[in-house]
Amino acid sequence: MQRTSFENMNCPIARSLERVGEWWSILILRDAFYGLTRFDEFQKSLNIAPNMLTRRLNGLVEEGLLEKRLYSERPPRYEYFLTERGRDFRPVMLALLAWGNKHFSPEGEAVIVADRATGERADPVLVDRASGRPITEDAFETRPGPAATGSTLERFERRRAKREASPSEAGKAPGPVQG
Amino acid sequence: MQRTSFENMNCPIARSLERVGEWWSILILRDAFYGLTRFDEFQKSLNIAPNMLTRRLNGLVEEGLLEKRLYSERPPRYEYFLTERGRDFRPVMLALLAWGNKHFSPEGEAVIVADRATGERADPVLVDRASGRPITEDAFETRPGPAATGSTLERFERRRAKREASPSEAGKAPGPVQG
Repeated sequence: MQRTSFENMNCPIARSLERVGEWWSILILRDAFYGLTRFDEFQKSLNIAPNMLTRRLNGLVEEGLLEKRLYSERPPRYEYFLTERGRDFRPVMLALLAWGNKHFSPEGEAVIVADRATGERADPVLVDRASGRPITEDAFETRPGPAATGSTLERFERRRAKREASPSEAGKAPGPVQG
Repeated sequence: MQRTSFENMNCPIARSLERVGEWWSILILRDAFYGLTRFDEFQKSLNIAPNMLTRRLNGLVEEGLLEKRLYSERPPRYEYFLTERGRDFRPVMLALLAWGNKHFSPEGEAVIVADRATGERADPVLVDRASGRPITEDAFETRPGPAATGSTLERFERRRAKREASPSEAGKAPGPVQG
Protein backbone atom coordinates (compact mmCIF):
# COMPACT_ATOMS: atom_id res chain seq x y z
CA MET A 1 0.00 0.00 0.00
CA GLN A 2 1.53 3.24 -1.09
CA ARG A 3 0.56 6.75 -0.18
CA THR A 4 -0.17 9.57 -2.54
CA SER A 5 0.46 13.07 -1.37
CA PHE A 6 -2.79 14.96 -1.07
CA GLU A 7 -0.98 17.51 1.07
CA ASN A 8 -0.93 20.22 -1.55
CA MET A 9 -4.56 20.00 -2.55
CA ASN A 10 -6.63 22.95 -1.45
CA CYS A 11 -9.32 20.81 0.13
CA PRO A 12 -9.77 20.01 3.82
CA ILE A 13 -11.16 16.59 3.03
CA ALA A 14 -8.11 15.67 0.96
CA ARG A 15 -5.91 16.91 3.74
CA SER A 16 -7.69 14.82 6.28
CA LEU A 17 -7.19 11.79 4.09
CA GLU A 18 -3.50 12.50 3.85
CA ARG A 19 -3.51 11.82 7.58
CA VAL A 20 -5.30 8.56 7.45
CA GLY A 21 -4.32 6.78 4.27
CA GLU A 22 -4.90 6.35 0.59
CA TRP A 23 -8.46 7.10 -0.20
CA TRP A 24 -9.27 7.73 -3.81
CA SER A 25 -12.77 6.36 -3.41
CA ILE A 26 -13.75 9.06 -0.96
CA LEU A 27 -12.46 11.74 -3.28
CA ILE A 28 -14.50 10.25 -6.12
CA LEU A 29 -17.55 10.39 -3.87
CA ARG A 30 -16.73 13.95 -2.91
CA ASP A 31 -16.62 14.87 -6.59
CA ALA A 32 -19.87 13.00 -7.21
CA PHE A 33 -21.44 15.25 -4.56
CA TYR A 34 -20.06 18.19 -6.55
CA GLY A 35 -22.07 16.86 -9.47
CA LEU A 36 -19.35 15.21 -11.53
CA THR A 37 -20.60 12.17 -13.40
CA ARG A 38 -18.23 11.36 -16.27
CA PHE A 39 -14.95 9.53 -16.37
CA ASP A 40 -13.02 12.42 -17.86
CA GLU A 41 -14.48 14.83 -15.32
CA PHE A 42 -13.29 12.70 -12.42
CA GLN A 43 -9.95 12.20 -14.07
CA LYS A 44 -9.44 15.89 -14.63
CA SER A 45 -10.51 16.79 -11.12
CA LEU A 46 -8.47 14.15 -9.34
CA ASN A 47 -5.49 13.82 -11.65
CA ILE A 48 -5.71 10.09 -11.14
CA ALA A 49 -4.32 7.36 -13.40
CA PRO A 50 -7.07 6.03 -15.71
CA ASN A 51 -6.65 2.41 -14.66
CA MET A 52 -6.88 3.39 -11.00
CA LEU A 53 -9.95 5.49 -11.68
CA THR A 54 -11.60 2.65 -13.59
CA ARG A 55 -10.92 0.29 -10.71
CA ARG A 56 -12.27 2.68 -8.10
CA LEU A 57 -15.40 3.58 -10.07
CA ASN A 58 -16.13 -0.09 -10.65
CA GLY A 59 -15.58 -0.77 -6.98
CA LEU A 60 -18.00 1.97 -5.97
CA VAL A 61 -20.59 0.62 -8.40
CA GLU A 62 -20.11 -2.92 -7.08
CA GLU A 63 -20.52 -1.71 -3.53
CA GLY A 64 -23.72 0.09 -4.40
CA LEU A 65 -22.47 3.64 -3.83
CA LEU A 66 -22.59 4.70 -7.46
CA GLU A 67 -24.95 3.75 -10.24
CA LYS A 68 -23.80 3.52 -13.86
CA ARG A 69 -25.94 4.80 -16.73
CA LEU A 70 -25.21 4.60 -20.44
CA TYR A 71 -25.24 8.02 -22.08
CA SER A 72 -23.62 7.18 -25.40
CA GLU A 73 -24.06 4.01 -27.45
CA ARG A 74 -21.15 4.44 -29.84
CA PRO A 75 -18.72 4.43 -28.28
CA PRO A 76 -20.38 3.11 -25.10
CA ARG A 77 -19.96 5.71 -22.38
CA TYR A 78 -21.30 5.77 -18.85
CA GLU A 79 -22.16 8.35 -16.29
CA TYR A 80 -21.92 7.65 -12.58
CA PHE A 81 -24.54 8.82 -10.12
CA LEU A 82 -24.71 8.56 -6.36
CA THR A 83 -27.15 5.98 -5.06
CA GLU A 84 -29.02 6.39 -1.80
CA ARG A 85 -26.19 4.49 -0.08
CA GLY A 86 -23.66 6.84 -1.64
CA ARG A 87 -25.64 9.89 -0.56
CA ASP A 88 -25.81 8.55 2.96
CA PHE A 89 -22.04 8.80 3.08
CA ARG A 90 -22.30 12.59 3.14
CA PRO A 91 -22.17 12.98 6.95
CA VAL A 92 -18.87 11.07 7.00
CA MET A 93 -17.48 13.41 4.41
CA LEU A 94 -18.72 16.51 6.19
CA ALA A 95 -17.27 15.24 9.46
CA LEU A 96 -13.94 14.79 7.64
CA LEU A 97 -14.32 18.28 6.25
CA ALA A 98 -14.88 19.76 9.71
CA TRP A 99 -11.91 17.84 11.11
CA GLY A 100 -9.68 18.99 8.27
CA ASN A 101 -10.82 22.56 8.71
CA LYS A 102 -10.01 22.46 12.39
CA HIS A 103 -6.68 20.70 12.25
CA PHE A 104 -5.10 21.03 8.84
CA SER A 105 -6.01 24.47 7.57
CA PRO A 106 -3.49 26.89 9.06
CA GLU A 107 -4.09 29.36 6.23
CA GLY A 108 -7.87 29.35 6.70
CA GLU A 109 -10.75 27.25 5.43
CA ALA A 110 -10.93 26.36 1.76
CA VAL A 111 -14.40 24.84 1.98
CA ILE A 112 -17.18 25.52 4.42
CA VAL A 113 -20.69 24.20 4.95
CA ALA A 114 -23.38 26.83 4.50
CA ASP A 115 -27.13 27.23 4.53
CA ARG A 116 -28.22 26.76 0.96
CA ALA A 117 -30.78 29.55 1.09
CA THR A 118 -29.07 32.22 3.16
CA GLY A 119 -25.41 31.33 2.65
CA GLU A 120 -24.93 31.53 6.37
CA ARG A 121 -22.10 29.41 7.63
CA ALA A 122 -22.99 26.18 9.43
CA ASP A 123 -20.97 24.37 12.06
CA PRO A 124 -21.63 20.63 11.67
CA VAL A 125 -21.76 18.77 14.95
CA LEU A 126 -22.86 15.24 15.75
CA VAL A 127 -25.83 15.06 18.14
CA ASP A 128 -28.27 12.45 19.30
CA ARG A 129 -31.31 12.79 17.07
CA ALA A 130 -33.92 12.40 19.80
CA SER A 131 -32.40 14.49 22.58
CA GLY A 132 -30.29 16.88 20.51
CA ARG A 133 -27.37 16.39 22.90
CA PRO A 134 -23.89 16.53 21.35
CA ILE A 135 -22.22 13.11 21.04
CA THR A 136 -19.27 13.86 23.31
CA GLU A 137 -17.00 11.27 24.90
CA ASP A 138 -18.23 12.29 28.32
CA ALA A 139 -21.85 11.61 27.52
CA PHE A 140 -21.89 8.82 24.95
CA GLU A 141 -19.95 5.65 24.32
CA THR A 142 -20.06 2.71 21.95
CA ARG A 143 -21.65 -0.50 23.19
CA PRO A 144 -22.13 -3.97 21.77
CA GLY A 145 -25.25 -4.19 19.64
CA PRO A 146 -27.56 -7.18 19.17
CA ALA A 147 -25.35 -8.63 16.41
CA ALA A 148 -22.05 -8.34 18.28
CA THR A 149 -19.94 -11.47 18.01
CA GLY A 150 -16.54 -12.70 19.19
CA SER A 151 -14.05 -10.07 18.10
CA THR A 152 -16.38 -7.17 18.88
CA LEU A 153 -17.25 -8.51 22.30
CA GLU A 154 -13.55 -9.05 22.98
CA ARG A 155 -12.88 -5.44 22.08
CA PHE A 156 -15.44 -4.25 24.61
CA GLU A 157 -14.05 -6.66 27.16
CA ARG A 158 -10.58 -5.21 26.63
CA ARG A 159 -11.98 -1.72 27.02
CA ARG A 160 -13.63 -2.66 30.28
CA ALA A 161 -10.41 -4.17 31.62
CA LYS A 162 -8.43 -1.12 30.53
CA ARG A 163 -10.83 1.26 32.20
CA GLU A 164 -10.65 -0.61 35.43
CA ALA A 165 -6.86 -0.61 35.30
CA SER A 166 -6.52 3.04 34.36
CA PRO A 167 -9.78 4.98 34.32
CA SER A 168 -8.29 8.28 33.20
CA GLU A 169 -6.47 6.93 30.15
CA ALA A 170 -8.77 4.34 28.71
CA GLY A 171 -11.28 6.52 26.96
CA LYS A 172 -13.61 6.82 29.92
CA ALA A 173 -13.39 10.57 29.56
CA PRO A 174 -11.12 12.80 27.52
CA GLY A 175 -7.67 12.84 29.07
CA PRO A 176 -5.57 15.94 29.56
CA VAL A 177 -5.12 17.90 26.36
CA GLN A 178 -2.13 16.51 24.56
CA GLY A 179 -0.15 17.23 21.45
CA MET B 1 -2.51 -0.14 -3.53
CA GLN B 2 -3.96 -3.43 -2.45
CA ARG B 3 -7.09 -4.14 -0.52
CA THR B 4 -7.42 -6.17 2.60
CA SER B 5 -10.68 -7.84 3.31
CA PHE B 6 -12.33 -6.35 6.36
CA GLU B 7 -15.56 -7.96 5.25
CA ASN B 8 -15.61 -10.62 7.90
CA MET B 9 -14.88 -8.39 10.83
CA ASN B 10 -17.86 -7.93 13.12
CA CYS B 11 -17.58 -4.15 13.14
CA PRO B 12 -19.62 -1.66 11.12
CA ILE B 13 -16.70 0.71 10.86
CA ALA B 14 -14.48 -1.98 9.38
CA ARG B 15 -17.25 -2.87 7.00
CA SER B 16 -17.62 0.68 5.88
CA LEU B 17 -13.91 0.82 5.20
CA GLU B 18 -14.13 -2.29 3.09
CA ARG B 19 -16.32 -0.18 0.82
CA VAL B 20 -14.00 2.71 0.50
CA GLY B 21 -10.45 1.42 0.63
CA GLU B 22 -7.54 0.31 2.72
CA TRP B 23 -7.66 2.04 6.03
CA TRP B 24 -5.57 0.56 8.80
CA SER B 25 -4.99 3.93 10.40
CA ILE B 26 -8.65 4.41 11.13
CA LEU B 27 -8.90 1.01 12.72
CA ILE B 28 -5.90 1.82 14.90
CA LEU B 29 -7.68 5.00 15.97
CA ARG B 30 -10.84 3.05 16.62
CA ASP B 31 -8.90 0.73 18.89
CA ALA B 32 -7.24 3.67 20.60
CA PHE B 33 -10.75 4.91 21.42
CA TYR B 34 -11.38 1.46 22.90
CA GLY B 35 -8.45 2.13 25.20
CA LEU B 36 -5.76 0.07 23.52
CA THR B 37 -2.31 1.61 23.90
CA ARG B 38 0.35 -1.04 23.32
CA PHE B 39 1.83 -2.47 20.17
CA ASP B 40 0.89 -6.03 20.97
CA GLU B 41 -2.66 -5.01 21.87
CA PHE B 42 -3.15 -3.35 18.49
CA GLN B 43 -1.53 -6.26 16.73
CA LYS B 44 -3.74 -8.78 18.43
CA SER B 45 -6.88 -6.79 17.82
CA LEU B 46 -6.20 -6.00 14.19
CA ASN B 47 -4.25 -9.06 13.12
CA ILE B 48 -1.96 -6.74 11.20
CA ALA B 49 1.60 -7.41 10.07
CA PRO B 50 4.07 -5.91 12.56
CA ASN B 51 5.92 -3.84 9.96
CA MET B 52 2.63 -2.40 8.72
CA LEU B 53 1.53 -1.63 12.27
CA THR B 54 4.84 0.07 13.04
CA ARG B 55 4.51 2.18 9.93
CA ARG B 56 0.92 3.17 10.69
CA LEU B 57 1.59 3.98 14.35
CA ASN B 58 4.59 6.10 13.40
CA GLY B 59 2.49 7.84 10.78
CA LEU B 60 -0.23 8.63 13.29
CA VAL B 61 2.36 9.97 15.73
CA GLU B 62 3.94 12.11 13.00
CA GLU B 63 0.56 13.49 12.03
CA GLY B 64 -0.18 14.40 15.63
CA LEU B 65 -3.06 11.97 16.14
CA LEU B 66 -1.26 9.75 18.64
CA GLU B 67 1.32 10.54 21.26
CA LYS B 68 4.04 8.10 22.21
CA ARG B 69 5.11 7.56 25.82
CA LEU B 70 7.88 5.34 27.12
CA TYR B 71 6.62 2.81 29.64
CA SER B 72 9.60 0.48 29.81
CA GLU B 73 13.28 1.41 29.64
CA ARG B 74 14.75 -2.03 29.02
CA PRO B 75 13.72 -2.97 26.50
CA PRO B 76 12.37 0.42 25.40
CA ARG B 77 8.60 0.12 24.95
CA TYR B 78 6.05 2.74 24.12
CA GLU B 79 2.39 3.27 24.65
CA TYR B 80 0.28 5.27 22.22
CA PHE B 81 -2.37 7.71 23.36
CA LEU B 82 -4.84 9.80 21.41
CA THR B 83 -3.99 13.47 21.22
CA GLU B 84 -6.64 16.17 21.06
CA ARG B 85 -6.41 15.98 17.27
CA GLY B 86 -6.91 12.25 17.43
CA ARG B 87 -9.89 12.59 19.74
CA ASP B 88 -11.43 15.12 17.39
CA PHE B 89 -11.58 12.37 14.78
CA ARG B 90 -14.30 10.65 16.78
CA PRO B 91 -17.27 12.19 14.90
CA VAL B 92 -15.84 10.87 11.62
CA MET B 93 -15.63 7.43 13.11
CA LEU B 94 -19.12 7.57 14.57
CA ALA B 95 -20.49 8.78 11.24
CA LEU B 96 -18.78 5.78 9.62
CA LEU B 97 -20.29 3.58 12.28
CA ALA B 98 -23.79 4.91 11.62
CA TRP B 99 -23.34 4.45 7.87
CA GLY B 100 -22.07 0.92 8.33
CA ASN B 101 -24.95 0.11 10.63
CA LYS B 102 -27.46 1.37 8.11
CA HIS B 103 -26.00 -0.16 4.98
CA PHE B 104 -23.77 -3.09 5.79
CA SER B 105 -25.35 -4.84 8.75
CA PRO B 106 -28.00 -7.18 7.36
CA GLU B 107 -27.76 -9.37 10.45
CA GLY B 108 -28.24 -6.46 12.86
CA GLU B 109 -25.96 -3.96 14.53
CA ALA B 110 -22.75 -5.14 16.13
CA VAL B 111 -21.93 -1.81 17.73
CA ILE B 112 -24.22 1.00 18.77
CA VAL B 113 -23.77 4.42 20.33
CA ALA B 114 -25.40 4.74 23.73
CA ASP B 115 -25.84 7.21 26.55
CA ARG B 116 -22.99 6.50 28.94
CA ALA B 117 -25.15 6.93 32.03
CA THR B 118 -28.45 5.36 31.05
CA GLY B 119 -27.35 2.99 28.29
CA GLU B 120 -30.12 4.34 26.11
CA ARG B 121 -29.40 4.03 22.44
CA ALA B 122 -28.40 7.20 20.58
CA ASP B 123 -28.91 7.98 16.92
CA PRO B 124 -25.98 10.17 15.80
CA VAL B 125 -27.00 12.81 13.29
CA LEU B 126 -25.09 15.79 11.94
CA VAL B 127 -26.73 19.13 12.70
CA ASP B 128 -25.78 22.78 12.55
CA ARG B 129 -24.55 23.67 16.03
CA ALA B 130 -26.27 27.03 16.27
CA SER B 131 -29.67 26.23 14.78
CA GLY B 132 -29.84 22.51 15.52
CA ARG B 133 -31.09 21.85 11.98
CA PRO B 134 -29.99 18.57 10.38
CA ILE B 135 -27.30 18.99 7.71
CA THR B 136 -29.34 17.62 4.82
CA GLU B 137 -28.56 18.11 1.16
CA ASP B 138 -31.75 20.11 0.74
CA ALA B 139 -30.81 22.63 3.37
CA PHE B 140 -27.02 22.84 3.38
CA GLU B 141 -24.26 22.79 0.80
CA THR B 142 -20.51 23.24 0.68
CA ARG B 143 -19.16 26.62 -0.40
CA PRO B 144 -15.73 28.05 -1.01
CA GLY B 145 -14.17 29.35 2.18
CA PRO B 146 -11.78 32.28 2.59
CA ALA B 147 -8.75 30.12 1.77
CA ALA B 148 -10.19 28.54 -1.39
CA THR B 149 -7.72 28.53 -4.25
CA GLY B 150 -7.56 27.35 -7.86
CA SER B 151 -8.57 23.71 -7.80
CA THR B 152 -11.24 24.23 -5.15
CA LEU B 153 -12.75 27.20 -6.95
CA GLU B 154 -12.73 25.19 -10.17
CA ARG B 155 -14.63 22.42 -8.43
CA PHE B 156 -17.34 24.83 -7.34
CA GLU B 157 -17.41 26.32 -10.81
CA ARG B 158 -17.95 22.87 -12.30
CA ARG B 159 -20.74 22.24 -9.81
CA ARG B 160 -22.43 25.50 -10.78
CA ALA B 161 -22.19 24.63 -14.48
CA LYS B 162 -23.53 21.13 -13.85
CA ARG B 163 -26.47 22.40 -11.83
CA GLU B 164 -27.42 24.79 -14.56
CA ALA B 165 -27.21 22.04 -17.16
CA SER B 166 -29.13 19.46 -15.13
CA PRO B 167 -30.56 20.74 -11.86
CA SER B 168 -32.07 17.47 -10.75
CA GLU B 169 -28.92 15.39 -11.09
CA ALA B 170 -26.13 17.65 -9.97
CA GLY B 171 -26.50 17.43 -6.24
CA LYS B 172 -28.95 20.28 -5.94
CA ALA B 173 -31.33 18.00 -4.16
CA PRO B 174 -31.36 14.23 -3.59
CA GLY B 175 -32.34 12.47 -6.77
CA PRO B 176 -34.80 9.61 -6.98
CA VAL B 177 -33.98 6.76 -4.64
CA GLN B 178 -31.59 4.42 -6.39
CA GLY B 179 -29.80 1.19 -5.70
